Amino acid sequence: MTNTKTVTAGVLLIGDELLSGRTQDTNLGVIAKFLVPLGVQISEARILADNADVIRDSVKAFSERYDYVFTTGGIGPTHDDITADCIAAAFDLGISEREDALAILRPLYEGRDFNAARRRMARIPDGASLIDNPVSKAPGFQTRNVFTLAGVPQIMKGMLPDIAHRIKGGPKVYQITVSTSEIGEGDAAEGLAQIEANHAGVSIGSYPWFNNDLRGINFVARGQDESVLEDVRIELEAFVKTLLSGYLR
Amino acid sequence: MTNTKTVTAGVLLIGDELLSGRTQDTNLGVIAKFLVPLGVQISEARILADNADVIRDSVKAFSERYDYVFTTGGIGPTHDDITADCIAAAFDLGISEREDALAILRPLYEGRDFNAARRRMARIPDGASLIDNPVSKAPGFQTRNVFTLAGVPQIMKGMLPDIAHRIKGGPKVYQITVSTSEIGEGDAAEGLAQIEANHAGVSIGSYPWFNNDLRGINFVARGQDESVLEDVRIELEAFVKTLLSGYLR
Repeated sequence: MTNTKTVTAGVLLIGDELLSGRTQDTNLGVIAKFLVPLGVQISEARILADNADVIRDSVKAFSERYDYVFTTGGIGPTHDDITADCIAAAFDLGISEREDALAILRPLYEGRDFNAARRRMARIPDGASLIDNPVSKAPGFQTRNVFTLAGVPQIMKGMLPDIAHRIKGGPKVYQITVSTSEIGEGDAAEGLAQIEANHAGVSIGSYPWFNNDLRGINFVARGQDESVLEDVRIELEAFVKTLLSGYLR
Repeated sequence: MTNTKTVTAGVLLIGDELLSGRTQDTNLGVIAKFLVPLGVQISEARILADNADVIRDSVKAFSERYDYVFTTGGIGPTHDDITADCIAAAFDLGISEREDALAILRPLYEGRDFNAARRRMARIPDGASLIDNPVSKAPGFQTRNVFTLAGVPQIMKGMLPDIAHRIKGGPKVYQITVSTSEIGEGDAAEGLAQIEANHAGVSIGSYPWFNNDLRGINFVARGQDESVLEDVRIELEAFVKTLLSGYLR
């Protein structure tokens, strides 16, 4: 079994609209799927209001606690876009309109007003490196182990390719799923715990599903060793068969 | 203007599957929409792995920081369902299979095996009051200001009606939306900040939207005074017209 240290990430999803029920976040899942093949596991995510103190403190705490931190939202041109300043405050860094970011934005507004609001998107903490934004140009940025990305899903997603090469992942976590209908979680619980206990380094989750009158369970096993996971799959499938035959008796 | 203290909530969404990209949380938005008419605002949400220490510490912190706390997930019969024990640990309470909860579950398993796993769903912290589950029976529970709910969306939603009467909300927060296409956020930013500054107690968010080649902004104003919000709506609409006429010049 591989025994390398797990590489972790924390994600901060920023914006009042995510907490009011107005907007459904979808960025977390996209970031999670991006990180799996890189060997990085998300340990925790927080959804934060547009509150400078809370954002600053959360960035600081996550930056110390996790190997990598992702923030989404709050880097546009309007007054409610405060993330860049919060990142600078979290690390006691200066922040200003940076020439490298201005150079990216300026051509977009040729013949139009490159006003203070638009220049606000060039406010980058001192020492941060820019993250390419192929969709709408205004860059994200990396400050130490913190990647600051846009909140709009299409734009956020477009920034990820310029992050992959900056990440030093750990062992990849693989997952297998065995699905069944009919069986109740209560009948599966004991045997399931036993299968998990028999395979060090494997965690098994039990997720009931409902579809009109049908119901069942997805058993999801996760671990770093693909061959052990294959053993677990075979055991789970046999286990399900045994349970089902019990139902038919 | 009403000046009563805002009543706040924190939400803890519990489960590895929400962090791995496997499952998209939808409970947060449902809880938010349930709380709006009760006059409760969600201040923060956290998505937590199945890690007992982290869950316990988060419950404790949220219970002190916010007026109400909601947890979703981890109250089923399998080994990965650890939320009830974490709640008990957070408040230094005992926990056991409680007769009131057993009485709800027992009839479900008549003629079937009411085994240890199923009885696990009757493990309730001492002193907690049960929350009715009309969908699948196994109850949620309230411990002080913390409501512990199921993770499966249909079941979670079914528990909310038995919570409404336990909540003492504050002033309701209303919201109005003015939508526009064409306009760039950079052109709107300065005027928008001015409109917000002119109306104490109103916060205005600016949310760009994208739809194939079309793009625009939703301006969302939130506040406790409906008549002030109507003024804001009129100002926003006039503002949008002025901006659009500038584009046509």
